[in-house]
Amino acid sequence: MRTEHGTAHGTAGAATDGHDLRHHGDAEVRDDGSALVDLAVNVRADTPPAWLRKVVAGSLDSLAAYPDGRAARAAVAARHGLSADRVLLTAGAAEAFVLLARALRPRRPVVVHPQFTEPEAALRDAGHTVGRVLLREEDGFRLDAAAVPEEADLVVIGNPTNPTSVLHPAAAVASLARPGRTLVVDEAFMDAVPGEREALAGRTDVPGLVVLRSLTKTWGLAGLRIGYVLAAPETIAELERAQPLWPVSTPALAAAEACVSPRALAEAARAADRIAADRAHLVAGLARFAPHGLRVVRPAEGPFVLVRLPGAAAVRHRLRGLGFAVRRGDTFPGLDERWLRLAVRDRRTVDGFLTALERAVSPAAR
Amino acid sequence: MRTEHGTAHGTAGAATDGHDLRHHGDAEVRDDGSALVDLAVNVRADTPPAWLRKVVAGSLDSLAAYPDGRAARAAVAARHGLSADRVLLTAGAAEAFVLLARALRPRRPVVVHPQFTEPEAALRDAGHTVGRVLLREEDGFRLDAAAVPEEADLVVIGNPTNPTSVLHPAAAVASLARPGRTLVVDEAFMDAVPGEREALAGRTDVPGLVVLRSLTKTWGLAGLRIGYVLAAPETIAELERAQPLWPVSTPALAAAEACVSPRALAEAARAADRIAADRAHLVAGLARFAPHGLRVVRPAEGPFVLVRLPGAAAVRHRLRGLGFAVRRGDTFPGLDERWLRLAVRDRRTVDGFLTALERAVSPAAR
Repeated sequence: MRTEHGTAHGTAGAATDGHDLRHHGDAEVRDDGSALVDLAVNVRADTPPAWLRKVVAGSLDSLAAYPDGRAARAAVAARHGLSADRVLLTAGAAEAFVLLARALRPRRPVVVHPQFTEPEAALRDAGHTVGRVLLREEDGFRLDAAAVPEEADLVVIGNPTNPTSVLHPAAAVASLARPGRTLVVDEAFMDAVPGEREALAGRTDVPGLVVLRSLTKTWGLAGLRIGYVLAAPETIAELERAQPLWPVSTPALAAAEACVSPRALAEAARAADRIAADRAHLVAGLARFAPHGLRVVRPAEGPFVLVRLPGAAAVRHRLRGLGFAVRRGDTFPGLDERWLRLAVRDRRTVDGFLTALERAVSPAAR
Repeated sequence: MRTEHGTAHGTAGAATDGHDLRHHGDAEVRDDGSALVDLAVNVRADTPPAWLRKVVAGSLDSLAAYPDGRAARAAVAARHGLSADRVLLTAGAAEAFVLLARALRPRRPVVVHPQFTEPEAALRDAGHTVGRVLLREEDGFRLDAAAVPEEADLVVIGNPTNPTSVLHPAAAVASLARPGRTLVVDEAFMDAVPGEREALAGRTDVPGLVVLRSLTKTWGLAGLRIGYVLAAPETIAELERAQPLWPVSTPALAAAEACVSPRALAEAARAADRIAADRAHLVAGLARFAPHGLRVVRPAEGPFVLVRLPGAAAVRHRLRGLGFAVRRGDTFPGLDERWLRLAVRDRRTVDGFLTALERAVSPAAR
């Protein structure tokens, strides 16, 4: 089964309320889009770095052996100051969502939207009825804890949130914890936030907390499938039982171990600072489109920004003609065809994009 | 949770009737066993070949992009003369077992033993009560179709079977098909059988047939996690819905596509012939241990042989001391501590092993 853009994945039950939950940024740069400058996919540019490629290439010498995840698991645990029984390595965050949906058997799962659609799609595919909390534009898409129904026994929230780029205060997120409730915080983009402020990863004092982390975006490992879950040992054991044997490949394990090394963490911290500067440049540049009705959701704290723009769909198509791919926003619950998500790129790419955007919003001037 | 040998995987519910279903050959050569000559793991020696390593290494250039499985899926379909909607690529056969257990919801699953334990472990972990059909030594572990209960709605059988090395006639396996029954045939080792005779892969006339294939053993890709399922389009769609998004990594997809090329198939065919010759050499060599009570299950048709030997556990420990790792048989339902599984290796390795075995069965002679 394929979506409109050919993503080879089942979609039944995932296209709800007009939102194709299984549409992802990769579909925007595939096929005819491969020649486009990519502001659609939230993977850091020029990654993986050469040293990391070397680590992955080195692991190919032991492909004939079954993967042994122990060293990588211990390294991830140490990076967050946790014991290894609080860590589960997964084949990307996508596998973690499926494990949560299948292993935990929630009765009243709720997803806080707009956000990455895969958690809801995985829950639906596992047969669950999923409730939605829709954060509102007029609140700046900030978390309204009171909007989360008290009876929800599984709450999923992203921080910083894809696609709004809102960074919720850690205390606000933690306040969603309840006895008998699993609180899933998708921190896939937290390592792109300077100082990882507002992170809950590593905390053991929040009951029912499950933190998901990805190594895909910061390290350019989308093709390798590696991420991890941090949670209480009982929860980790439950998820692990739902995992296939040897769930993570040897190259992915080698990458995971390398990406939590002090050297890698320092590099990620520098990248986060650079992203913040590049994002400021992008947001400043977008200000000149205010007369066209363009609004940026602010403050943006992730490696992407969400914008509202009249005629966004047409602008997106014109941008493709001008060589730039951006992410449509209408597949996210709570958003519609007026929204676009833009990945933060270096200043030169941003400047080129802004020039193209000028032409795209004023097609008559071409 | 770890098994006795440190396999990092959940085991609850998998150790039943004294059989640790989550014990696998890789545990026999881990840690202190890494210096041993490995007759425990059923991966072809000297793999992956250089050309395949090069293919995998080449795929590392596109790690930043999300995996796109379409080309590999089409290649696998073409290799079996099937349409692409009859193929699902999986992160190893291990993922396929979990998908079958979770997506198909059988009420009366039955596993034909002795065989690879992961299907039963995955079914149990998904909450199913699993029936067992135990093939008998006195029948040469050959399939007795009448022993499979008529009401079973999911039947799992391996062909050739790990660990017995018995190759069941395709017609006998196909005769297990029934309306309303899913017939899962694990053909993970079929490409090591000259001519792949008795294969059901590619057949579309057997109702409910699900064939699993692995690229791990013949191609030395255990660390990469790649295999595939062949089934009717409706079944494939069901399994696909239970899969995470982007389930197979880019390097694994590159390998899959390469391993079904005409060149690779020709190489696998030559390897199958060589394995048959090496196996004949091993079986002939084992004949001289008949006075010690050693019996080989024959005819052996897979890249391993199963032997019964008085005092097998002690012999296995002495073999380790002599530098050789062999696979214990007692973790397979239907077998006990008298059984050992030996991977087929080249003549020189086999000769070295037979010499060690002489010392191991007659410790006094040391």
